[in-house]
Amino acid sequence: MATGKRTFASDNYAGVHPEVMEALIRANANHAGSYGADPYTERAVRLFKQFFGEDAEVFLVYNGTAANTLGLSAITKSYNSIICSSLAHINVDESTAPEKFTGCKLITIDSPDCKLLPEQIEARIQRVGDQHHPQVKVISISQSSEYGTVYTADEVRALSAVAKKHNLYLHMDGSRISNAAVSLNAEFRSFTRDAGVDVLSFGGTKNGMMFGEAVVFFNPDLAKDFSYIRKQGMQLHSKMRFIGAQFEALLSNDLWKRNATHANKMARKLAEVIKQNGGTITQRVDANGVFAMLPVNTIAPLQEERFFYIWNDVTNEVRLMCSFETSEEDVEAFGKRMGELKN
Amino acid sequence: MATGKRTFASDNYAGVHPEVMEALIRANANHAGSYGADPYTERAVRLFKQFFGEDAEVFLVYNGTAANTLGLSAITKSYNSIICSSLAHINVDESTAPEKFTGCKLITIDSPDCKLLPEQIEARIQRVGDQHHPQVKVISISQSSEYGTVYTADEVRALSAVAKKHNLYLHMDGSRISNAAVSLNAEFRSFTRDAGVDVLSFGGTKNGMMFGEAVVFFNPDLAKDFSYIRKQGMQLHSKMRFIGAQFEALLSNDLWKRNATHANKMARKLAEVIKQNGGTITQRVDANGVFAMLPVNTIAPLQEERFFYIWNDVTNEVRLMCSFETSEEDVEAFGKRMGELKN
Amino acid sequence: MATGKRTFASDNYAGVHPEVMEALIRANANHAGSYGADPYTERAVRLFKQFFGEDAEVFLVYNGTAANTLGLSAITKSYNSIICSSLAHINVDESTAPEKFTGCKLITIDSPDCKLLPEQIEARIQRVGDQHHPQVKVISISQSSEYGTVYTADEVRALSAVAKKHNLYLHMDGSRISNAAVSLNAEFRSFTRDAGVDVLSFGGTKNGMMFGEAVVFFNPDLAKDFSYIRKQGMQLHSKMRFIGAQFEALLSNDLWKRNATHANKMARKLAEVIKQNGGTITQRVDANGVFAMLPVNTIAPLQEERFFYIWNDVTNEVRLMCSFETSEEDVEAFGKRMGELKN
Amino acid sequence: MATGKRTFASDNYAGVHPEVMEALIRANANHAGSYGADPYTERAVRLFKQFFGEDAEVFLVYNGTAANTLGLSAITKSYNSIICSSLAHINVDESTAPEKFTGCKLITIDSPDCKLLPEQIEARIQRVGDQHHPQVKVISISQSSEYGTVYTADEVRALSAVAKKHNLYLHMDGSRISNAAVSLNAEFRSFTRDAGVDVLSFGGTKNGMMFGEAVVFFNPDLAKDFSYIRKQGMQLHSKMRFIGAQFEALLSNDLWKRNATHANKMARKLAEVIKQNGGTITQRVDANGVFAMLPVNTIAPLQEERFFYIWNDVTNEVRLMCSFETSEEDVEAFGKRMGELKN
Repeated sequence: MATGKRTFASDNYAGVHPEVMEALIRANANHAGSYGADPYTERAVRLFKQFFGEDAEVFLVYNGTAANTLGLSAITKSYNSIICSSLAHINVDESTAPEKFTGCKLITIDSPDCKLLPEQIEARIQRVGDQHHPQVKVISISQSSEYGTVYTADEVRALSAVAKKHNLYLHMDGSRISNAAVSLNAEFRSFTRDAGVDVLSFGGTKNGMMFGEAVVFFNPDLAKDFSYIRKQGMQLHSKMRFIGAQFEALLSNDLWKRNATHANKMARKLAEVIKQNGGTITQRVDANGVFAMLPVNTIAPLQEERFFYIWNDVTNEVRLMCSFETSEEDVEAFGKRMGELKN
Repeated sequence: MATGKRTFASDNYAGVHPEVMEALIRANANHAGSYGADPYTERAVRLFKQFFGEDAEVFLVYNGTAANTLGLSAITKSYNSIICSSLAHINVDESTAPEKFTGCKLITIDSPDCKLLPEQIEARIQRVGDQHHPQVKVISISQSSEYGTVYTADEVRALSAVAKKHNLYLHMDGSRISNAAVSLNAEFRSFTRDAGVDVLSFGGTKNGMMFGEAVVFFNPDLAKDFSYIRKQGMQLHSKMRFIGAQFEALLSNDLWKRNATHANKMARKLAEVIKQNGGTITQRVDANGVFAMLPVNTIAPLQEERFFYIWNDVTNEVRLMCSFETSEEDVEAFGKRMGELKN
Repeated sequence: MATGKRTFASDNYAGVHPEVMEALIRANANHAGSYGADPYTERAVRLFKQFFGEDAEVFLVYNGTAANTLGLSAITKSYNSIICSSLAHINVDESTAPEKFTGCKLITIDSPDCKLLPEQIEARIQRVGDQHHPQVKVISISQSSEYGTVYTADEVRALSAVAKKHNLYLHMDGSRISNAAVSLNAEFRSFTRDAGVDVLSFGGTKNGMMFGEAVVFFNPDLAKDFSYIRKQGMQLHSKMRFIGAQFEALLSNDLWKRNATHANKMARKLAEVIKQNGGTITQRVDANGVFAMLPVNTIAPLQEERFFYIWNDVTNEVRLMCSFETSEEDVEAFGKRMGELKN
Repeated sequence: MATGKRTFASDNYAGVHPEVMEALIRANANHAGSYGADPYTERAVRLFKQFFGEDAEVFLVYNGTAANTLGLSAITKSYNSIICSSLAHINVDESTAPEKFTGCKLITIDSPDCKLLPEQIEARIQRVGDQHHPQVKVISISQSSEYGTVYTADEVRALSAVAKKHNLYLHMDGSRISNAAVSLNAEFRSFTRDAGVDVLSFGGTKNGMMFGEAVVFFNPDLAKDFSYIRKQGMQLHSKMRFIGAQFEALLSNDLWKRNATHANKMARKLAEVIKQNGGTITQRVDANGVFAMLPVNTIAPLQEERFFYIWNDVTNEVRLMCSFETSEEDVEAFGKRMGELKN
């Protein structure tokens, strides 16, 4: 993939938002304590607490696979199992990091929109107290989901009710949480902490940062070992100020919201353009991802125009991702090329 | 630790070298392939190959604990053991990441200067082929060592001979490898690949980068699973170009050498100043670390002047680290304060 | 569960066959080398080789969970996945031993008779070579299956063909392999080694032993680390002669066949009796297990007569297991009680 | 090692005590619940509680490596470390089972008699609360030790005081605990529970059983997950009654004491004979092991007479183990041969 070529491949293909880059440059002044003992990290944590409550515990890590895997590790024993969507990032895109690091089994649920339903969970809670059988301990959901759909606060609350009923924890993979918040037009905590989430992976990289995610615990007891788990998990950055400074920028001046708003808007626009040009949108465009069926013979030339990935080899469903720096021109060029290919 | 306060606490307290920061800014242009499929990473890898040979296999990761742990994981089975110094970073400063991720036992050797001797290794290779006993598979050394001392190429070669004799691998934790290269006034490969090292952790962060280390395999067979190991190890960065670009800067225009040369020079100067003011230098100042005994009553006020860590609570030996941005003024201020405290 | 009460609960409820017990008594004479360096183990291994070929590698362990988990461990790396039935013992009845010890993900397939089909496997082999995704390495099947059904040699061969095509290994959980052999009226090797199985868990305990299973490798290369894996896996018995002697008894004088023949025969007879009394048999009775739907109101009193487990809480399907020491009287008493309850 | 040849190689070379064998035969009557739901296991547990207190929690497992590894797993997190003798069985004779299963580091202490001293422990408790460093959580001692020496209750109590002071647990590897109890002429609980031990591996195999050890928790809170840990650890026997029945026999009618008394007595006698014939006893003969220096040229012929292992290749120190079935004749024959070789 040559640099300079514009794509809808992933929100990972985008670079770093200028305000984040400026924060990095500013943070590069003189000495700072390492491993988080620096004012940038301190201020970032303070901002997280403003969003999530004073007693939230916040730990910065490098990436999303780690945020999920280590967060899950903090709330499980190795004989537990974790219920998730069969399409969950933790199930299909993190190698076997969750199994290797936690020892747990992942129990997967198929669902057409990648969102889990309470009754699906209930059906998978089996043989509680049976020493022979993996003991369910966590429900893990992605917000927004891998299909670009978003749980409402009520939907999260319903899952949390199941979790509480069965003494489980509710984990949220929020690598695209800002896109979800914008989609719901809601405060972060309304569909996380206040809806019963116990542990959250808060995404930074996909929303304009260079690197960095946060693991946020809403129950401080769950966090009491986490500094050791993070270090053991190879995720404690020495020059931590450079993650702290990025989150400070992202969480200040509504940068997180501006970025996600733009990405979501571009996705909706892209969906429109695809529909207008004969494509079929296969999932609700709640956030910044667009899933679609395109005329088969147009896929290759459209990938040439603005690269994107085929999501399902069998059905030819494709995935197009928008980010904070997707441009109107990107969308229009895509539509234009679709139009040309129709003829 | 307030920002802005100058210290000798760690080479981690330094920020990012301006040339590295510029490279990051330049890399932040338009889209780039993720997970390493970008031209910055490609060019960084090419530079590594210029230093280490065309068939060296290079993998970029976030930090040193990961570079060591995952590199060791690639060359061991879980019933193996790893011989290292009792002061090795992998033994005392990486939580139990090596044990947790590899399953292996670390077998430790005490030595006055933190450097291992062939005969010490020989004595620890026991019960080969005995299913009851952990089977030694790796010798791991740090270059420069945790005491700031440096192995000569011949010393590395002698350890490699022991390794080969017993069918072991030789691993080098090179988080400060540039300081060692400058100290030896030698090419990297002369005391790594050409001296028999199999796997190297090549340090970036401590020599002026924001984040990023490299795992370098000199035998491509050892690397064949490593892309999976890195991903499973939660160390595959999505926006990899930002590690690639930093290494490109560090390995270009001798930046690695300029930085390390300065740090080493400051360390030697600092050692001089300490001696002149009544301190005792306890280890050879081969690289960028200074170990010293200071008059006990001067420690606290000197920490106030330029903070540093007490290395050994019992003996009051202290450690002072210099980096690419330690200034002459830092050293002089320290000497001046020592002088004042003498009186 | 009081001793003395006769049940169809499990082949684990049976005791030890008298010929096995006599072998244990005979083996308790004087000293013998430990950890397998004894003539009993040597002779047991020789018998295995007569069944499976001179170059088969045989390792005795304590139980079936270990035979499976350690056998799988020998043929996987931690970033692999293992395809199995969703009802496989390794998936639902071994806690998370496979995940914890191997690090791998289990990928499950639903099938009405618990037997996997080649096309089901093909559909689950995804994203080969993609570092983000668990890499399939093993197909694991149970013979006889958890539903008491048996794969023919041709069916195993068809799975092996898929395995070979995709560079996977074929693992067989043979905790009831003797029942399968009798059912097929075939030599062990015809549906294991000769049909393409790479690693076999050979069951002893359920067919009349006190404790002990064997892990059999048909490719010696796969076994070269296994003595270490067994020891590390806490499965190397010090007084190994007492496992060796049991297997020697089981594999001599067709004891394995006599026991399994009896158990299978009792199962078929029990199925007949159940059908005659208004029950419905839900799975082929290939081996020693009977799955049935009983009139709901008869379940509790029948459990009182001869205890058995409810297999599926929702459908009220029940499972009845026969063993080498199930008696005609057990079957008749069950039928008689069913008859009484009909009226 | 041919059967029938008498040795001092290991207490593992002995067979099964007749009373244990009779118990096995008796237990082989009719059906019994599996996985511990049987009256034999129930009675064995009751006997353990008579020795150790009503609220002791007892779990039967297959072997000593598992008893140690799983017991340690129950009281650690993976970022912990465990202090033990450098000669501890968990350090040198259990492959890397402890590291692999617990993730913890073993920190070793050298001592001339294999017994740990409080001040040695204190010196190794470092960097408490430092996320970078493995956090000490357990002191593990062997009773009797690998050198055949025995801790007095007061010595255990002193270690427990250190443990409590630093919030550590005290684990005892009691694979030869009966020999220690006899040596001390003390109740089991006097030097375990009452002396501050938290978790105990209680040995059966080396004192006359065919297989089986027990993990005993004196604090029930520590045991609450252990049924899952045991199952996941591949140590839950299906036909558990056959471990239960053995322990019932061992703990009844003072069989444990008779066996250990005999073994210890034979060891003392053997030591006498060795001394009389020019050998040097190198360790206190507290229990059933004898460590000695023999005239070098006599070692091979004496091994021919009654095999034993060389403990230390460098010093030619040898180890001779006595068991419940070591005979006076064994000892006399050894002495006689020593006498012949003197001349």
